[in-house]
Amino acid sequence: MEQLLFSVERLEKFISSVLEAYRVQAEHAHICATQMIAADLRGMHGHGIYRLPSYCQRLEEGGYNLHPDIKIKRETPVSAIVDGDNGLGQAVVTKAVELAISKAQKNGLAWIGIRGSNHAGAGGVYAAMTLPHDLISMYMAVGNANHMPPWGGVDLLLSTNPIAFAIPTGDEPPIVLDMATTVASYGKVKVAAQKGQELPVGWMVDHSGNPLTDPKRVKEGFLLPIGGHKGYGLNFIIGSLAGVLNTAAVGSAILDFNKDFKNPTNSGQVFFAMRPDLFRDLDDFKTEMDLRIREIRNSTPMQGAGPIRLPGEMALRREQQMREKGVPVTAVVLDQIREIARKLRLADCLEA
Amino acid sequence: MEQLLFSVERLEKFISSVLEAYRVQAEHAHICATQMIAADLRGMHGHGIYRLPSYCQRLEEGGYNLHPDIKIKRETPVSAIVDGDNGLGQAVVTKAVELAISKAQKNGLAWIGIRGSNHAGAGGVYAAMTLPHDLISMYMAVGNANHMPPWGGVDLLLSTNPIAFAIPTGDEPPIVLDMATTVASYGKVKVAAQKGQELPVGWMVDHSGNPLTDPKRVKEGFLLPIGGHKGYGLNFIIGSLAGVLNTAAVGSAILDFNKDFKNPTNSGQVFFAMRPDLFRDLDDFKTEMDLRIREIRNSTPMQGAGPIRLPGEMALRREQQMREKGVPVTAVVLDQIREIARKLRLADCLEA
Repeated sequence: MEQLLFSVERLEKFISSVLEAYRVQAEHAHICATQMIAADLRGMHGHGIYRLPSYCQRLEEGGYNLHPDIKIKRETPVSAIVDGDNGLGQAVVTKAVELAISKAQKNGLAWIGIRGSNHAGAGGVYAAMTLPHDLISMYMAVGNANHMPPWGGVDLLLSTNPIAFAIPTGDEPPIVLDMATTVASYGKVKVAAQKGQELPVGWMVDHSGNPLTDPKRVKEGFLLPIGGHKGYGLNFIIGSLAGVLNTAAVGSAILDFNKDFKNPTNSGQVFFAMRPDLFRDLDDFKTEMDLRIREIRNSTPMQGAGPIRLPGEMALRREQQMREKGVPVTAVVLDQIREIARKLRLADCLEA
Repeated sequence: MEQLLFSVERLEKFISSVLEAYRVQAEHAHICATQMIAADLRGMHGHGIYRLPSYCQRLEEGGYNLHPDIKIKRETPVSAIVDGDNGLGQAVVTKAVELAISKAQKNGLAWIGIRGSNHAGAGGVYAAMTLPHDLISMYMAVGNANHMPPWGGVDLLLSTNPIAFAIPTGDEPPIVLDMATTVASYGKVKVAAQKGQELPVGWMVDHSGNPLTDPKRVKEGFLLPIGGHKGYGLNFIIGSLAGVLNTAAVGSAILDFNKDFKNPTNSGQVFFAMRPDLFRDLDDFKTEMDLRIREIRNSTPMQGAGPIRLPGEMALRREQQMREKGVPVTAVVLDQIREIARKLRLADCLEA
């Protein structure tokens, strides 16, 4: 598939300039651009610059608050609610992560609930923010459109509800896990559908429960949870903690952000941060993390299988590679965002 | 399969008397008996009275500390390490749950790390302990034998590492999720193997990656993670948080408690408790939980599928039924525990 490579700086600046042209305040535009490209850099292209056209459509139709007053509510030394006031999801969640980090540094740990937010992209990007501070983190989110029924049902009441974790290490690459509780994220499905690639069996089924692999039929089917009823249960728990507990949208209250670009999504997320030295000396912890990582990496691969990976290892390699060689943008996305840039009469329209 | 039914009280008293005959202190024997039967009552028979013979063998071979000094270390208002001093797992974890509840009631939330513990049974039993206190909870544990390789590998470096959650509700049955991060728990595999039942495809594979379904070949195979690499990642995260972070055994440091009954297992668990009213009024939270539960339960089932369930719903029904009609004990288990009771010359040897 045709794609072009651009530098991180150029793409970040491009996204910022697009958002600012839509009158997003400069600080939020900058944060959003950085976090979107951070998702691309981790290889999570479904949450990267690929999303810009849909954010632009929401900006055009008035779905975002351009001057949100992001407020901290019900604060305790170890918890808070961040109300995003319908600002850009990346700006809201980044603020919540910063709050969690500062509280965890002071008081050991912190759980921040988020409401009034929007689609914020890749959970791994936020989880990884605690690593330079030597903090463990957990992120949960209610997805922004329901693509899954309850286990044994057909009504779309559940989203992909992802969960992410980051764990500091010593010399080894830090552990970062970022996973939808569906077998595939809808972002991945959309990227595959856009490329016209057949979906692997197990990603989606149709309303009779038969495998759906045709990328053109994506809208007829629904996603499957990991581990059957287990993933359904975990998905519901995440929806309860990131949605119900934060007075954010979940279940039938979810607005499909792929169809409605006007009304607030009231997205909910959770961010939790914790100091490892609550439980053992930091250096000892990191040293043993390295040991457990190495014994896995150096263990015997199954015949015919490649080297054994740890969560986050590939993301780090991808990032190093992309920072050197450039971030790929597919021709389809490039067409869309160039058109937006030309319409906005931007100086840089990402011509080659 | 042949089984007999016994009252909850009789089984609890029976287990207590067995453990006390092995000189376990009365308080710990009582807690262990209660939590084992609580697992049976939730339908998690692999963690119920079924485990008694293996606990007895460990008691006989000196693998437990009969008079553990369960200590609280590195305490903060919202965290602590509980060192179980190699006591019975159920006694250690129950103490940690009580500590988490009291800290969460006072300070909003609490994360308790546990080390020096032992196999503690069903996570759902501990998670559910916070429900009468209107607290949300999360439990994680490193399993007590490695039955799974890293994704793409064949060396057994991972256990079933379960995670459990409990969420209070209003009029609806509380949400309790209790799941191994493997497709099947090894407890379930053992129960099936004991009954001579063929394993479903997807539970285990052999060392070449082929499905293993023969209950006689269980020891040759390994468990599969839910969602492939996702479940592997989640399993490793749980091992890091419940194992490495607590200075408890994980990875190659895991002693197979089905083979070694002499040496301390240094089991690790995590218990987290949190007040919902940190984020919204408790009654509003419970009311919306009920609403989200009902919209799922009342949604359309897939053709041919039974009614749609919520996590914990069946466990509650099973408990009500067993409290009324009795707790089933299979003939195989009954033979084993009757023999133990006769050897110990107990007054009640569970004769019919």
